[in-house]
Amino acid sequence: MPIDTRQIQAIVFDAYGTLLDVSSIDAYLINTFGEDKATEIAKHWRQKQLEYTWLRSLMHQYVDFYTLTEHALLYALKATDTAAETSIIRDTMSQYYHLKVYDDVSPTLARLSEKYKLAILSNANPSLLEKATAYNNIDPYLSEILSADILGQYKPAPSVYQLAEKAFQLESKEILFISSNTWDIAGASAYGLQTCWLKNRQNGLLEELGQQVNLEINTLNELTLVLG
Amino acid sequence: MPIDTRQIQAIVFDAYGTLLDVSSIDAYLINTFGEDKATEIAKHWRQKQLEYTWLRSLMHQYVDFYTLTEHALLYALKATDTAAETSIIRDTMSQYYHLKVYDDVSPTLARLSEKYKLAILSNANPSLLEKATAYNNIDPYLSEILSADILGQYKPAPSVYQLAEKAFQLESKEILFISSNTWDIAGASAYGLQTCWLKNRQNGLLEELGQQVNLEINTLNELTLVLG
Repeated sequence: MPIDTRQIQAIVFDAYGTLLDVSSIDAYLINTFGEDKATEIAKHWRQKQLEYTWLRSLMHQYVDFYTLTEHALLYALKATDTAAETSIIRDTMSQYYHLKVYDDVSPTLARLSEKYKLAILSNANPSLLEKATAYNNIDPYLSEILSADILGQYKPAPSVYQLAEKAFQLESKEILFISSNTWDIAGASAYGLQTCWLKNRQNGLLEELGQQVNLEINTLNELTLVLG
Repeated sequence: MPIDTRQIQAIVFDAYGTLLDVSSIDAYLINTFGEDKATEIAKHWRQKQLEYTWLRSLMHQYVDFYTLTEHALLYALKATDTAAETSIIRDTMSQYYHLKVYDDVSPTLARLSEKYKLAILSNANPSLLEKATAYNNIDPYLSEILSADILGQYKPAPSVYQLAEKAFQLESKEILFISSNTWDIAGASAYGLQTCWLKNRQNGLLEELGQQVNLEINTLNELTLVLG
């Protein structure tokens, strides 16, 4: 079903991989662990970070996103036979506070914020999101910074997407959810939000999870063409 | 904490990758899709099968394991640019009914069944599990074949591990759960079962999920040494 732009009153963005470029950390990883290991560490780290959000939600063993991300880093170091002192682990983790937004983020948010309410909806701790948005000067464009942390459950649990509905007091179809993560699109679609898949951030394929994708875009700029 | 053998009254096994060798399908994949593609298809297939059990459980969008496995296969074919007719997809899926058990399974189950109640606890449909255990002649050793299907939720949801407790009317610590899958060990441990990690099936590392592993073994035969 194509996007129904007339209904849309708020636009909600996933954070990591959609607005914030996790690969901002790569240069630090290369400097710290060497080029060969950095790629492998980054791959394991991101994969386990995702898996641990899903597994801990299912196990009812919530820990906050920053802690969980550190656990994923410990796994990645173990999987790559990398010894690292506590201070290095702490420094590596702190890079999460300084992730850069992709180039198309600030202009698009500035433009869209003139017409729509905008929000971030993310698994990350509120403090992480607040620091990352302030660091990138995009906080003035955002009406809401919504974190799964308040629920003790991660995406794609329906309750997380419901946070957007509640925050804006809107119906699900009045909200457009934007993510580069295909499993996140599936979750938002299952909950009933309108969905927009941002394709150019990573080489992805849509999941076989029965999702409705209402709009596919290659860059965030395309959003302003569709939504004016 | 080391295993407390005096308490154990029942032994519960994960199925795929622990008793049943999923790589039994590899020869069929090579014959059907060629050697180069077979490895890539198998890798994506298994990864998405796992991910979809977690994601669908979290999304409250349950479909049974056979259907979900077919969805994962469709993803794997798409990800590897492999065209396949419906009849090929059906044939590939039907291989799941003819998975072989690992060599150490039958002798170990025969031996342990003299002293303990044994069960399978799996995500798979009951019909899949019944056919696979009958095909390998291990059904006489099993008191129970427990499937997550009855719950409409997959491991590592606590309710799935609880099925074992309920079936045997035992306390959690009276049950030893055995799996080669490290996330499955984490789930069983979080629920409170005693856990045994079977290490030789795949190159794995324990997850950073705070699990208790009460016993680590390299082959199933070692179980008979510990549990007599």
